[in-house]
Amino acid sequence: MATTFSYDHLYQFTYSIFQKMGCSDTDATLATKVLLSADVRGIDSHGVARLSGYVRLWEAGRINATPNIKIVHETPSTAVIDGDAGLGLVVAPFAMQVAIDKAKNVGTGWVSVKNSNHFGIAGYHAMMALQQDMIGMAMTNASALVAPTFSVERMLGTNPIAVAIPANEEPAFVADMATTTAANGKLEILQRKDAEAPLGWVQDVDGNDSTDANILKKQGALLPLGSDREHGSHKGYALGSIVDIFSAVLSGASYGPWAPPFPAYVPMPENMPGQGLGHFFGAMRVDAFRPADEFKAHMDNWIKRFRNAKPAEGHEKVLIPGDPEREMEAVRMTEGIPVVDPVVNDLTELGKKWNLEL
Amino acid sequence: MATTFSYDHLYQFTYSIFQKMGCSDTDATLATKVLLSADVRGIDSHGVARLSGYVRLWEAGRINATPNIKIVHETPSTAVIDGDAGLGLVVAPFAMQVAIDKAKNVGTGWVSVKNSNHFGIAGYHAMMALQQDMIGMAMTNASALVAPTFSVERMLGTNPIAVAIPANEEPAFVADMATTTAANGKLEILQRKDAEAPLGWVQDVDGNDSTDANILKKQGALLPLGSDREHGSHKGYALGSIVDIFSAVLSGASYGPWAPPFPAYVPMPENMPGQGLGHFFGAMRVDAFRPADEFKAHMDNWIKRFRNAKPAEGHEKVLIPGDPEREMEAVRMTEGIPVVDPVVNDLTELGKKWNLEL
Repeated sequence: MATTFSYDHLYQFTYSIFQKMGCSDTDATLATKVLLSADVRGIDSHGVARLSGYVRLWEAGRINATPNIKIVHETPSTAVIDGDAGLGLVVAPFAMQVAIDKAKNVGTGWVSVKNSNHFGIAGYHAMMALQQDMIGMAMTNASALVAPTFSVERMLGTNPIAVAIPANEEPAFVADMATTTAANGKLEILQRKDAEAPLGWVQDVDGNDSTDANILKKQGALLPLGSDREHGSHKGYALGSIVDIFSAVLSGASYGPWAPPFPAYVPMPENMPGQGLGHFFGAMRVDAFRPADEFKAHMDNWIKRFRNAKPAEGHEKVLIPGDPEREMEAVRMTEGIPVVDPVVNDLTELGKKWNLEL
Repeated sequence: MATTFSYDHLYQFTYSIFQKMGCSDTDATLATKVLLSADVRGIDSHGVARLSGYVRLWEAGRINATPNIKIVHETPSTAVIDGDAGLGLVVAPFAMQVAIDKAKNVGTGWVSVKNSNHFGIAGYHAMMALQQDMIGMAMTNASALVAPTFSVERMLGTNPIAVAIPANEEPAFVADMATTTAANGKLEILQRKDAEAPLGWVQDVDGNDSTDANILKKQGALLPLGSDREHGSHKGYALGSIVDIFSAVLSGASYGPWAPPFPAYVPMPENMPGQGLGHFFGAMRVDAFRPADEFKAHMDNWIKRFRNAKPAEGHEKVLIPGDPEREMEAVRMTEGIPVVDPVVNDLTELGKKWNLEL
């Protein structure tokens, strides 16, 4: 069961929590906006469902509510940013803005971030580039839950990649995907329903096929996009690895199995080779390649052509990346955001800490 | 059955063919080196097996053997290059060098290319960055053989992505992958053996599951990485789309279903929205982010840790992207390159045109 809240209602509650953590008004506003963009777009696993997790990380001293985020190295088209253990929800938009500013100057900007935390949905940050007629990119490493091809050890996070590309009359192309066959949030949905996972999403501790949606609690692992070697899991593994290296090895964050865990009760890995989580952002000015109007007219043409590709029987139409999330946003901004009972209870408990009512 | 040739033997033959086509000595040398890098690394579908295909495109007037390759637009970190319908094997290294030169100046370089042709293996171009302590990236669009999720229409090529990342003591990380579950070359191998394809590689003209390795000749389609919606094919479709847009919409090449076909007997698509095939290259100077020695030491650590991840039963070890190709190269440079009979016959026929003996 679920309760439906208006965006404004969840906004006020979430903003108050961040403020009670000690975030400045500006940071609490930004963190709330970024966090709720997940709920609004239908990526329920990355929105208010994670709010109490952020608070617990703050209580454990792993999140700094008043970070001094700064550029520690730069060239005309690149920067490395130290997030000072701040909320990724605040560090990431700062870093993406640096990428955008550099793109204004020299055509593109590329920013790698260390010493950060979970940044919400990658798509939010990538989409910041759109209103500037830029292509935006965002990726992040994350707690290790994914076994490389031929392995039973969890070595990588679900390491998402988001790419946002502007169009003119058509809505923007916005891809935002975990580099695994299924994101962890999909497993959580099955757990709540007590349902089985399809074959190809997870494996057990010994590397056998599994349909147990709770297998991650039994040392099982998520599988890279492609599921198995015959269906290209080595490609998903390579993509997740590239995200890990760009986000964490380039910046000086902690990588691979040493990425800091999201649950505050999980001890930090020993001998971490860097600081905190890492992210990577890119911005490319469209007119650094060809006139923006020309590019966007061709993007309209691209999108229309793909949307009109002949559908398979039983399917109404071909989707453009970003279509489902945009449609969800339109619905939820008017009809409200359904929050499932376990999350409602979690938020209610969280509110009691500071006498805040959900 | 196959005949084994030394690298030098294939080199001489291939070089002579390109020279007979009218390529300059420099271009014939470069094209030969790029083409054979595929055979040496074990990607047999992209090497000498394609040589007669290039010649037929030249005979059809679709490849210009003496192109005037030039930068048509640029900013400090970007460029668009017009390949003048040249061999992609020659256009691509030119463009990648421009990306590298820009990275020397401003930290990164990003080059989109129009009016080109097939460029061999993406990995060759990405790897050009390695000796400069840069991360290299290469991608290209290609003839449409892939159906988007929920579609039966061929809209995208196998659109590969290559990323090469330098290390110090360890060999470089080199990922080079089609954004489909299986590359077309894998189907060709099955066709020669009269074997079936695994489920999840292709679909028939109506979008049904198929194991027919010849299904592309019957209006079937390759499937995006992920195979079906439940296993993430929308992610493979998004990745292939991003490659198409970066390579062709950014540059002004022909995109999606309008990408020019490789077989010269297939008519060019009508109403092409751009010129030729498109590519996209990137170079990022490692020390634009952190000192190169530091980065490479951490890459050594990353690679060692992943290579030592606990293997699943029945597997000896976890591979690092690039391992199989590098091991193949070591073998083939000493023991020679096996070329299957149909390709030997094809090359023998091709040689007769100019009295060249294989």
